[in-house]
Amino acid sequence: MSECVNLSAILKKQGELVLEDTPIPKPGKNEVQIRMQRVGICGSDVHYWTHGRIGHFIVEAPMILGHESSGIVSEVGEGVQHLKTGDRVAIEPGVPCRMCEFCKKGRYNLCHDMVFCATPPVDGSLRRFYTHAADFCYKLPDHVSMEEGALLEPLSVAVHACRRAGVTLGNNVLICGAGPIGLMSMIVARAMGAAVIAITDIDEGRLNKAKELGVNYTVKVDSRDGKVMAAKIEEIMGCQPDVTIECSGAEPSVQTSVYATKSGGMVVLVGMGPNEMLSAPLINAGVREVDIRGIFRYANCYPIALSMISSGQVNVKPLITHHFDLEKTMDAFETAKTGAGGAIKVMIHCGDDN
Amino acid sequence: MSECVNLSAILKKQGELVLEDTPIPKPGKNEVQIRMQRVGICGSDVHYWTHGRIGHFIVEAPMILGHESSGIVSEVGEGVQHLKTGDRVAIEPGVPCRMCEFCKKGRYNLCHDMVFCATPPVDGSLRRFYTHAADFCYKLPDHVSMEEGALLEPLSVAVHACRRAGVTLGNNVLICGAGPIGLMSMIVARAMGAAVIAITDIDEGRLNKAKELGVNYTVKVDSRDGKVMAAKIEEIMGCQPDVTIECSGAEPSVQTSVYATKSGGMVVLVGMGPNEMLSAPLINAGVREVDIRGIFRYANCYPIALSMISSGQVNVKPLITHHFDLEKTMDAFETAKTGAGGAIKVMIHCGDDN
Amino acid sequence: MSECVNLSAILKKQGELVLEDTPIPKPGKNEVQIRMQRVGICGSDVHYWTHGRIGHFIVEAPMILGHESSGIVSEVGEGVQHLKTGDRVAIEPGVPCRMCEFCKKGRYNLCHDMVFCATPPVDGSLRRFYTHAADFCYKLPDHVSMEEGALLEPLSVAVHACRRAGVTLGNNVLICGAGPIGLMSMIVARAMGAAVIAITDIDEGRLNKAKELGVNYTVKVDSRDGKVMAAKIEEIMGCQPDVTIECSGAEPSVQTSVYATKSGGMVVLVGMGPNEMLSAPLINAGVREVDIRGIFRYANCYPIALSMISSGQVNVKPLITHHFDLEKTMDAFETAKTGAGGAIKVMIHCGDDN
Amino acid sequence: MSECVNLSAILKKQGELVLEDTPIPKPGKNEVQIRMQRVGICGSDVHYWTHGRIGHFIVEAPMILGHESSGIVSEVGEGVQHLKTGDRVAIEPGVPCRMCEFCKKGRYNLCHDMVFCATPPVDGSLRRFYTHAADFCYKLPDHVSMEEGALLEPLSVAVHACRRAGVTLGNNVLICGAGPIGLMSMIVARAMGAAVIAITDIDEGRLNKAKELGVNYTVKVDSRDGKVMAAKIEEIMGCQPDVTIECSGAEPSVQTSVYATKSGGMVVLVGMGPNEMLSAPLINAGVREVDIRGIFRYANCYPIALSMISSGQVNVKPLITHHFDLEKTMDAFETAKTGAGGAIKVMIHCGDDN
Repeated sequence: MSECVNLSAILKKQGELVLEDTPIPKPGKNEVQIRMQRVGICGSDVHYWTHGRIGHFIVEAPMILGHESSGIVSEVGEGVQHLKTGDRVAIEPGVPCRMCEFCKKGRYNLCHDMVFCATPPVDGSLRRFYTHAADFCYKLPDHVSMEEGALLEPLSVAVHACRRAGVTLGNNVLICGAGPIGLMSMIVARAMGAAVIAITDIDEGRLNKAKELGVNYTVKVDSRDGKVMAAKIEEIMGCQPDVTIECSGAEPSVQTSVYATKSGGMVVLVGMGPNEMLSAPLINAGVREVDIRGIFRYANCYPIALSMISSGQVNVKPLITHHFDLEKTMDAFETAKTGAGGAIKVMIHCGDDN
Repeated sequence: MSECVNLSAILKKQGELVLEDTPIPKPGKNEVQIRMQRVGICGSDVHYWTHGRIGHFIVEAPMILGHESSGIVSEVGEGVQHLKTGDRVAIEPGVPCRMCEFCKKGRYNLCHDMVFCATPPVDGSLRRFYTHAADFCYKLPDHVSMEEGALLEPLSVAVHACRRAGVTLGNNVLICGAGPIGLMSMIVARAMGAAVIAITDIDEGRLNKAKELGVNYTVKVDSRDGKVMAAKIEEIMGCQPDVTIECSGAEPSVQTSVYATKSGGMVVLVGMGPNEMLSAPLINAGVREVDIRGIFRYANCYPIALSMISSGQVNVKPLITHHFDLEKTMDAFETAKTGAGGAIKVMIHCGDDN
Repeated sequence: MSECVNLSAILKKQGELVLEDTPIPKPGKNEVQIRMQRVGICGSDVHYWTHGRIGHFIVEAPMILGHESSGIVSEVGEGVQHLKTGDRVAIEPGVPCRMCEFCKKGRYNLCHDMVFCATPPVDGSLRRFYTHAADFCYKLPDHVSMEEGALLEPLSVAVHACRRAGVTLGNNVLICGAGPIGLMSMIVARAMGAAVIAITDIDEGRLNKAKELGVNYTVKVDSRDGKVMAAKIEEIMGCQPDVTIECSGAEPSVQTSVYATKSGGMVVLVGMGPNEMLSAPLINAGVREVDIRGIFRYANCYPIALSMISSGQVNVKPLITHHFDLEKTMDAFETAKTGAGGAIKVMIHCGDDN
Repeated sequence: MSECVNLSAILKKQGELVLEDTPIPKPGKNEVQIRMQRVGICGSDVHYWTHGRIGHFIVEAPMILGHESSGIVSEVGEGVQHLKTGDRVAIEPGVPCRMCEFCKKGRYNLCHDMVFCATPPVDGSLRRFYTHAADFCYKLPDHVSMEEGALLEPLSVAVHACRRAGVTLGNNVLICGAGPIGLMSMIVARAMGAAVIAITDIDEGRLNKAKELGVNYTVKVDSRDGKVMAAKIEEIMGCQPDVTIECSGAEPSVQTSVYATKSGGMVVLVGMGPNEMLSAPLINAGVREVDIRGIFRYANCYPIALSMISSGQVNVKPLITHHFDLEKTMDAFETAKTGAGGAIKVMIHCGDDN
């Protein structure tokens, strides 16, 4: 592969992930070309690989994977002013149309014409060279690493979830599911002022990771009965949570979230299971004015996520458990899929800079 | 019954509604005694009569019914300053504890120690004389009628629903269910600035009433498939509603509400069906950031409802379709139960003043 | 002037307004060319003409005036999909950069790189042909007139002011100043649910106009003492306003606004006087938690303003008092400047279509 | 003074502070009697002593001082359920009427009938025994000290200020004035997610204290020109603050606050100077949509402040610089007045328990 100039991780079709050379793209107006450095593997990357689809997003043609990424500006397109060659950047992977009502209102994550890395049919950033809208590239201070730059993506999901949840000073917060997004949400909720945080999972290893990261209470999920789990949570926390952030996507956990949350509180649904219809105690939620909200990606969260890391408010590096070179992408995906070795966040190195 | 001084409509037990004399209560500190004038029949009154319970609220002892009411102050307790004998008042039927965190935060409708008329075991106001916390009695201007005073109760439910929905200028609003609360919500949504309002129902008569009251579009419910109904609604409205207020409590209508609402919008659940679990497209709601909220009664809505009527912003009198004297309470309840004669709001006269 | 193809109203410099031919612009990508129909004269147009500047915006080169405008699409640029030749449109006159944090957050009115018609050095739309970003042109339904299309601009200012004020159901609202924006704000506040509205002015004619348009109370300003005026307002309204929208820009009126507003309420400053520093009772505002906010133009208000007019919620046509052809622009400006003949809104006709 | 059973610090009149015995009060319904332990001295206590008034609150009769306090329940009145004799409690010093619209809406700090310790004519808590509404007494966990309980009061002011300011994740925050409330606000802003905080003062000692407590930047106030100071702040912070919390009450600092704050941001006025009228750049604030808000005490902040301390989120103990026994109250006030020995918070011990 010595002559390969833009090695890229291409999902040919469901189950078939290959490394192939692709043309090096040139930056258009207001774009930059980026020499990629780090790309984290997201559950959605794995899911496209193993299932070929997520909801109506279907892999119908070969697509480059990857959207949690950082790199170094290697060429600057016309009109770009705030970046120059050599700048180290984190890449917010979705670029909206900028013209619809959602874009104008500040909720660009809902834009119907969003172009988002590695959401079919849009190619992702898991390659040597990639171009992107310059204003969605955020310059990293010297003391913020490339890994941290790539982690801004899942951190932004957590920021959006916690902001939609309205987490605020003194809140008691419940996180359901201790995967990467659950753990990120725990970290963000703390930074927003949560006083007490509990986290649930079926896996002891994940709960232990949460303990290391500073959660107040862990709750082993040992029942599919939402009322039983809610009672257990209340007993452990000594109160009902003001806010619950449901990151598992499991129906029983959604039910637990509603029953567990204090009257007047909020449940945010972050996890997504396979079923279109969920059975949930909506009357219980309604008469206790427990509001239910979902999230879709994020908007205006990258700058916040960056400032959190840059200022030292949070440390997300412990979430990275494995590293692979781009050439070992298949091993990286296998690790991410199986969770072998306690894998939480698997990081692929497209370059050697830090 | 000539010597009867405080004729009262008592639900002895499920199915057994009688008129009996009860002692005339004396006003305590910060209370007033009220010579009752009008009491509207609410669906919950009928439900307690026919089913003996609503959720965990169970009629286990005889209880006076009625909570949509108005009357004339007949005696003033110690400490009352803003009311005097002869004042015509509307009665907000729930008195909270004033000391818990919900009360202190302004969400007193969630107070666990709420004392609410005609919610077991608390007696209601369908009688000749009744006492109530003075600060939950609102003096009516001369040009506001006793009937309007009684209607402040369901109007407050609609105000709370529309405020929780965040209805605002230029909104397109969908109301599901054209019963009293649906119609009230339509009126309130309009007053809050809704540009276009559509209403659904399975009953043509109710849809016609909605037309009389100024709805822009009516949608006959002719499918239990939420996606089919959502498509029909979008076709009729020419857009997706920003806000949907679900007043029917029917599961298919809840599903329609989610599918119909525009991304970034809001569904408020007002109606309540019999099932604890509802099957709903929560992932669809989540990824489109359509928020779901319920309501429980209301808080801080009576003053608003009164100012709406007093200022002439809204006219709710057309919702009253039937009048009965207190002595004819059983006929009134029969009419409310069957909806005979196109009954929407049935009003009972406990006195002759207007 | 028969060979003149794009007659344009050009402010050569302070005090020198002329009509001259200019080149017909071609629409670029995502732009449309518009055959102009109506342009309303704004106070800022008059101010640039008479003073040559507003704040740091200084007329240093000839500039075409006009920004309250409507017209007919005469040519469609590349990429435009929602408009076609012949469409009647209202023009939102400011086009932001779409890339800065203000644009991304939905507050594009604060964009530092805003290109806004007739704010130096950007040319305005008071001419025969003009090009504009297509997504800031709003197609008018057939029943909405060209005049109404032009009035969307001041109406949007009022919408923004009332939304920033948080006007809501049952509010008592005070408007200070009964000029075009004050009257528009009155109309919008009503549409948002204001129960009772009072308006102040020093001019009886303007107060009478407000009465015609449905204000509840008028208050003649006859003192420069804010406390005296506040007391007078409370006596007339029978209460303190929840919200005050200050449209005069006069220092005594700003002081009145603070003193008059109810504790916990809101003062929105819309009017702007000449002085950088204003003397205001900020401690009084602070300890009563009366919040103070200003507005700058508007964001996301045109669609709302259009739906208000389109749905018949509001009627703003009575604000138009004078009409002039483009060739009579100087007369139009003279009328707007002097307010002769009770001028409120002066409308210039660049074309004959309605 | 051996037989003295309820030694109390009484402000006889301006300048005359004495220690005298007063009757031990008995707890009424829903009240508790408290054996006082700690009372912090607030600037207002000193001000009443030295000036005899604050605004319209005038000391016209002898009044016991003190309102930042904690103690031990020594007797429980009728109806009290959540407290028992021996409970250690912090005392929220204001008890509202519970019946007015402000109380019902959750803004009880604006209640016109508030009974607030040591605000004339209401006696404060600087004595051996005191009674208070039980629901405004918060039980302290064992690991929270009596000093911390007393500090909940100024901490609640800071919580209210930061909540009104809307401080949130990633914010850059400016605090003007590094006195007790400025320092508390700095601590609270950090706990709410502020990324970068700068603080201003004219006193190097106070700035050094702020550094010890973790502020990112200190700014020495060396100019009365708000624009000059704003430029200096921007240079030091490397950005404009999203939120400014003005705690000095000085007019030039208020001006600085407005000029310094980023467009679309917020200035909260906490400090209060002597002048009714302040000269401020309100047009500058308005056209940049920098909102201005004041605060009055706090509402619903004690539980948050307590959970912050209880959970270890914040450590406010370093603010306490001096301790005195009740018998040495005059020395304590002298120290608080002069700030001798770098006094920030002076704590008086009414009892020996911790």
